[in-house]
Amino acid sequence: MKLNDYTKSREAFARAKRVIPSGIYGHQGPAEGCFIPTDAFPYFSLRAQGSYFWDADGNRFIDYMCAYGPNILGYNDPDVDEAARKQRELGDCITAPSERMIEFAELLVDTVASADWAFFAKNGNDATTGAILCARAYTHRKKIVFFRGYYHGVSPWTQKVDYPGIIEEDVCNNICIPWNDVNALHTVFEENKGQIAAIIGQPYLHGNFADNELPAPGFWQEVRRLCTENDTVLIVDDVRAGFRLDLAGSDHYFGFEADLICFCKALANGYNVSALCGKEFLKNTMSSLSYTGSYWLSAVPFAAGIACIEKMKRLDLACVLQEKGQRLCDGLVFAAGKYGFDLRVSGIPSLFYLRRADDPTLMLHQEWISECVRRGVYFTNHHNHFINAALSDEDIRETIEVAEEAFRVVRERHS
Amino acid sequence: MKLNDYTKSREAFARAKRVIPSGIYGHQGPAEGCFIPTDAFPYFSLRAQGSYFWDADGNRFIDYMCAYGPNILGYNDPDVDEAARKQRELGDCITAPSERMIEFAELLVDTVASADWAFFAKNGNDATTGAILCARAYTHRKKIVFFRGYYHGVSPWTQKVDYPGIIEEDVCNNICIPWNDVNALHTVFEENKGQIAAIIGQPYLHGNFADNELPAPGFWQEVRRLCTENDTVLIVDDVRAGFRLDLAGSDHYFGFEADLICFCKALANGYNVSALCGKEFLKNTMSSLSYTGSYWLSAVPFAAGIACIEKMKRLDLACVLQEKGQRLCDGLVFAAGKYGFDLRVSGIPSLFYLRRADDPTLMLHQEWISECVRRGVYFTNHHNHFINAALSDEDIRETIEVAEEAFRVVRERHS
Repeated sequence: MKLNDYTKSREAFARAKRVIPSGIYGHQGPAEGCFIPTDAFPYFSLRAQGSYFWDADGNRFIDYMCAYGPNILGYNDPDVDEAARKQRELGDCITAPSERMIEFAELLVDTVASADWAFFAKNGNDATTGAILCARAYTHRKKIVFFRGYYHGVSPWTQKVDYPGIIEEDVCNNICIPWNDVNALHTVFEENKGQIAAIIGQPYLHGNFADNELPAPGFWQEVRRLCTENDTVLIVDDVRAGFRLDLAGSDHYFGFEADLICFCKALANGYNVSALCGKEFLKNTMSSLSYTGSYWLSAVPFAAGIACIEKMKRLDLACVLQEKGQRLCDGLVFAAGKYGFDLRVSGIPSLFYLRRADDPTLMLHQEWISECVRRGVYFTNHHNHFINAALSDEDIRETIEVAEEAFRVVRERHS
Repeated sequence: MKLNDYTKSREAFARAKRVIPSGIYGHQGPAEGCFIPTDAFPYFSLRAQGSYFWDADGNRFIDYMCAYGPNILGYNDPDVDEAARKQRELGDCITAPSERMIEFAELLVDTVASADWAFFAKNGNDATTGAILCARAYTHRKKIVFFRGYYHGVSPWTQKVDYPGIIEEDVCNNICIPWNDVNALHTVFEENKGQIAAIIGQPYLHGNFADNELPAPGFWQEVRRLCTENDTVLIVDDVRAGFRLDLAGSDHYFGFEADLICFCKALANGYNVSALCGKEFLKNTMSSLSYTGSYWLSAVPFAAGIACIEKMKRLDLACVLQEKGQRLCDGLVFAAGKYGFDLRVSGIPSLFYLRRADDPTLMLHQEWISECVRRGVYFTNHHNHFINAALSDEDIRETIEVAEEAFRVVRERHS
């Protein structure tokens, strides 16, 4: 198999570093831990279509990162793009909002089990921060309980005290407990009686650098019970997992109801919009917040979001993506076994996380991933992956073939 | 003149209130103080083009709010929309960013006098919060100095302790001093020696519910001098005013250089993108932050931003907008005078603020504004207005005619 050349990506990156901090910042940049060894990964894209993107050098990738989530129907989905184009002709960011906003809110209320209302913004971070403000305003309490390994965006309140720019006051009301630990959950409520404004959690532990962990049976139900008993607001951060487990919300998938639920990423197939949905009893409190932004009522992302959710419903998409993910993962595990590697899959198959259990150093895992990427299958290390609707049987077959070749190369190198 | 009917806007709003907190939240909603009396204002838009938008009932408005800033070239500008459409065909939100990101950063570094680099996000609020994090990370200090009447977004750090959901810890390192007060400025540095991470200010005081105030001669220069002397980071929040005073930045317009400057709104004619630009000495610190978002590297808004800035440069737009604004304001003041009203204009003419000086209650001002809106000229109360490039001589003539008619009606009612 031909290995990718990244000359143009590297030239572009050299240009980028002159005018952009880090060249590419955040999770999409090579300074992030998911790109190891960095020389295996492309840095810039030319275009994308369906399940593929092409990098600056013209290499095609079967893309399992999906822009870290937003691509759920396939890049440039014709139905979503057509709805967006039609709205674009009418207008997007206008002094008064479009009625698309109402229609989108109505659709979310119809679709998401725990949603009595919807509030729109731009970032997942806007939704999670809005949720925290709403919980504090409603309860008149300060403390927030997190689950260890959490990621809820980049606002100061959700970072760590030793991160650059963060001060103690930003995080001094945060309490972190282990995931799936019922005893710790009981203890935190006992020791902070009447002080916990909210518990915020992703629907399951899909953090980086560790196997993803589903909720233990009854765990979310106990969280729900304790929140209700203690007048604490239960916030589900469905920014990453949303719509890949259940169109009715990942809380619904796990059999409970959040008070507030945060969406972004897959909400509009990449059009820039996020949503905070909530229960009726928090609606007036949400109305009372000083919370808005320049583009929060832009109509084009609303039109795209409507088309995206309607299509996801037609396709029964969460089931379809889980089935595709399961077939892929089964194939990867089988391919690993052929060469004596123990590949472990964790998380929900539409958001599968990979780890080679025979490699405590992580370096052999990285080596295998890099050999896949060099051959046109875009995985990353130590982050969950994402399945999209455009991923074909042929793509899955080709992926497994590449993965097997990569296992063969790694086995030969180390035997 | 025919007065607008808002039946459909009101029906839509009743629908909206069922599924959206406040129906329309934030500065674009009737719960905000700019819409008094609310019955004069439309709530939803159908479409927009150039200097106009049409509301849900089909009423056309000459729009002086410009979506609260983003519309700077005219709604649906053909050059910006064509650049965005071309990029959309290639792709938007992709696993690896497009080189449009580099080109946009290079263009901003070329255009904005104080910019050695650019960092992109979605909200103005993302840019101001990034600036605060960068300043705190660089200085290892906590305190931030604001100018009374400020608005820097909706993050907890920039709100007030008595706002719903805000806790003391969010704002306990904020110090507020009066605008244009050199003594207060000296005092704050003396009393907080070695503790001030940053001063953040809009280029001039363009807050709501008060005449806008330009910087006193030498004021910004003294701020700059003291920041340099005290190793304090000087942040200019150019989110609202950016590109309407000077394409090289509003700091450049007032003859000084910021260390960090925040843009949003007019940056891409309504496409959803914001930017934080800064000096070389802060670039590594910016790189060190944990700061990113799902859509921050989306390519379509970058393509739109490039086309927008290039067109603004070709048109020498800031000068053009100030000239249009000046002619309009002169006409409004003259029309007021004809009926014995004392209309005061403040701020830069491309961002003019209106107040009737003969009305300490503000109610007569609101009455005049409402008579304009009912006749198809979209002003709001107690907020600066915005001029866009599509505003024609005929639009200005028609606006002055409507304003005069509105003054006549108010005069007759109160004589």
